[in-house]
Amino acid sequence: MKTQFQEISGSIVAPKGFRASGVFCDIKRLGTGKGSNKGPKRDLALIVSESPATVAGMFTTNQVCAAPVKICVERVKKGGHARALVVNSGNANACTGRTGLADAREMVSFTEHALKLPKGSALVGSTGRIGVAMPMDQVRAGIVEAASLLGATVAHADHAVEAIMTSDTKPKAIAVEFKLGGKTVRIGGICKGAGMIQPGMSATGARPAALPHGGLHATMLGFITTDAAIDSKVLQASLNEAVAHSFNRITVDGDMSTNDTVLVLANGLAGNEKLKIKNPKLKTFQSALNHVCLELARKIVRDGEGVHRVVTVRVNGARTIPDADAAARAVANSALVKTSWHGGDPNWGRIIDAVGYSPATVVEEKIDIGYRAVGGQKILWSLKRGQPTKATFQQLCAAVAPKEFELHINLNLGRASAVMYAADLTEEYVDFNKGDVGDPGSLGG
Amino acid sequence: MKTQFQEISGSIVAPKGFRASGVFCDIKRLGTGKGSNKGPKRDLALIVSESPATVAGMFTTNQVCAAPVKICVERVKKGGHARALVVNSGNANACTGRTGLADAREMVSFTEHALKLPKGSALVGSTGRIGVAMPMDQVRAGIVEAASLLGATVAHADHAVEAIMTSDTKPKAIAVEFKLGGKTVRIGGICKGAGMIQPGMSATGARPAALPHGGLHATMLGFITTDAAIDSKVLQASLNEAVAHSFNRITVDGDMSTNDTVLVLANGLAGNEKLKIKNPKLKTFQSALNHVCLELARKIVRDGEGVHRVVTVRVNGARTIPDADAAARAVANSALVKTSWHGGDPNWGRIIDAVGYSPATVVEEKIDIGYRAVGGQKILWSLKRGQPTKATFQQLCAAVAPKEFELHINLNLGRASAVMYAADLTEEYVDFNKGDVGDPGSLGG
Repeated sequence: MKTQFQEISGSIVAPKGFRASGVFCDIKRLGTGKGSNKGPKRDLALIVSESPATVAGMFTTNQVCAAPVKICVERVKKGGHARALVVNSGNANACTGRTGLADAREMVSFTEHALKLPKGSALVGSTGRIGVAMPMDQVRAGIVEAASLLGATVAHADHAVEAIMTSDTKPKAIAVEFKLGGKTVRIGGICKGAGMIQPGMSATGARPAALPHGGLHATMLGFITTDAAIDSKVLQASLNEAVAHSFNRITVDGDMSTNDTVLVLANGLAGNEKLKIKNPKLKTFQSALNHVCLELARKIVRDGEGVHRVVTVRVNGARTIPDADAAARAVANSALVKTSWHGGDPNWGRIIDAVGYSPATVVEEKIDIGYRAVGGQKILWSLKRGQPTKATFQQLCAAVAPKEFELHINLNLGRASAVMYAADLTEEYVDFNKGDVGDPGSLGG
Repeated sequence: MKTQFQEISGSIVAPKGFRASGVFCDIKRLGTGKGSNKGPKRDLALIVSESPATVAGMFTTNQVCAAPVKICVERVKKGGHARALVVNSGNANACTGRTGLADAREMVSFTEHALKLPKGSALVGSTGRIGVAMPMDQVRAGIVEAASLLGATVAHADHAVEAIMTSDTKPKAIAVEFKLGGKTVRIGGICKGAGMIQPGMSATGARPAALPHGGLHATMLGFITTDAAIDSKVLQASLNEAVAHSFNRITVDGDMSTNDTVLVLANGLAGNEKLKIKNPKLKTFQSALNHVCLELARKIVRDGEGVHRVVTVRVNGARTIPDADAAARAVANSALVKTSWHGGDPNWGRIIDAVGYSPATVVEEKIDIGYRAVGGQKILWSLKRGQPTKATFQQLCAAVAPKEFELHINLNLGRASAVMYAADLTEEYVDFNKGDVGDPGSLGG
């Protein structure tokens, strides 16, 4: 399919009618161990639409779920409309009980008040330490300052994305532009996340009645803005689809956070004919939204804690989609496979071992394992039908040497497939996460 | 319950009528990368009973299953009797196709011939590299030599246990003695395993029809000898029970091997009245066998690759046993929890996060998390009903500082419980497993 969109600058303020800001209000210094005392880093962001926006969201399915997630689930379900997002880093407001819920409610109401917006029109996201009360004096001061600094330049968007970062080493942002019925429509997005990354989000935060094989699986936060005019149910369906193929397909360490959240605000200022169900133009919007979510998701894996190599695990030929997903997740989360990637070792024994213990039905004598360069055409097979091919060890080492490559696994049992965007496991990951014992409390959400 | 057995020396040759040997026949130097060129290490063991023994076994449920496992499953199911075990390290004989199966068959028939035993009376175990054909000339020479060196001294048992080690840094062996109806009965055991450790074994190697939450989860090999007289079905039931509470409750890295095997040979030479179903003396035998299996299993975790700390994860108050098991496995295998253990960081946020994303049903506001010293009485709670207690950070750090401690999680939803014997995740684990790229092939099974 020919892509019908192009990447542009401006991230979340590229779409018409959005302003952003990011400030330092001392949540981070109070909140986190690593990175503290390194001077002030922005820790509170505002993203505001000048007119009411349709909203859709996807939220962690972790049963231990942070207060801001609870507020968003409630508001997205109820209204489907919003004007503002307030987001802080340094404190996850998770496992903070009633106080935490009251603090999250105050964050949205204080934001609405500061921006003179109607009640119920703000949403909230938090990431950082788990189990510590939000420093509300700082938060209130931060909101007041951020409200006074809102703007629509690239610098404003850059401040917002900096303010949502925790262990991220790079800001993560994108924007695209495309035409819908003669009108120019834009989608912008920012995200954060580097550890505690294997999101498994749903629209309500509820887990599916039947757990898929492999269960459900950072804090990752993603905030997307668009000036498209789109019906709220259609926007939610589009976001479900986009997240299913992006944020819900990544893993750094296999740990799903208490705070994972993706929100989209669509304010309609592009002036396109409102996108409703079955509108053929939806395809164009969907493919642009898919691109924004996938690029943001892959940036998270590339910037994952201690990550040296990024591997796209593609499982084909499974009997069922849950089987394909389970096999891909088993390989993507195997400590032995991930350490072999780190070592540049084309160790198919560990891969077939993980496929074999995954909940997926597999038959050893049918399994193919191979590698493809990013953007390459040809797969170099190391195993065909369970047996080593004539590919030389040197050839296989060359295939797994690049910083990014694709691992292809064909189970040859059916037609279902799945992909996972995965990372290696390095000494740096362990060193970073063994924690800063001088720092009381729990980093993570 | 008062223990009715005592530990003695001699491991697998402590029971009457058993002899053992271990030799170097050059499988290991050919087969493995790490540890190679460090001079000859024994790599082939024989364990032989002077009279026919009842046999029972538990085998990996990995769908990718090594040739020696296939042979044992077939023979244990058919006969329930055996005389000899031949075991090699350095080559797993996994993913070796028809050649591998023929080689495994030749290993047992060659052993039977060398020992002048009836056909069908030998069993085989292998561990080491995956996907490389067995060097059968060396194996045959090794069997001939090992057969000539059989004996019943502690040194003979020590040679056998050395011969089954791969990345193990310590030999793992135990023996116990107890009375059954006036007769002295002994059980001895040896095992190996350090990485690719989260066994999920069944008596037939088949997976349960309904996969438990959390799925099924090194190479570990365990070989147990006893001079008890016991019916073969009763022996299998006893082994199922013992393995369910020991080898199937350990994890080093969450990876289940293609070769996991536990075999018990019971030759009856103690002269006790044969143990049959419902015999009240079975309890005494069971508790001794449980102790042998649990001590061997815990030795595997303590000697796990790169392991600094060993943590017993106890989940209580779950709605169901699969829920308790799933919560315990999620915590025991979480990269973030395991790195915090390495760091001596009492990070309850990561623990409650893992409990929350596990397939177990949990309610945040009901979860208790605490620590107990090995052999201690009192649990130091860090979290009660989802909220931090008044335990100080210093107290909690002290609780997680020892090389071994217990983590207690109470879900307060029901009466089911589960335990996992787990380990931390260290830089050494990563360094060891990132592989020796100079060495073609796949270490692992």
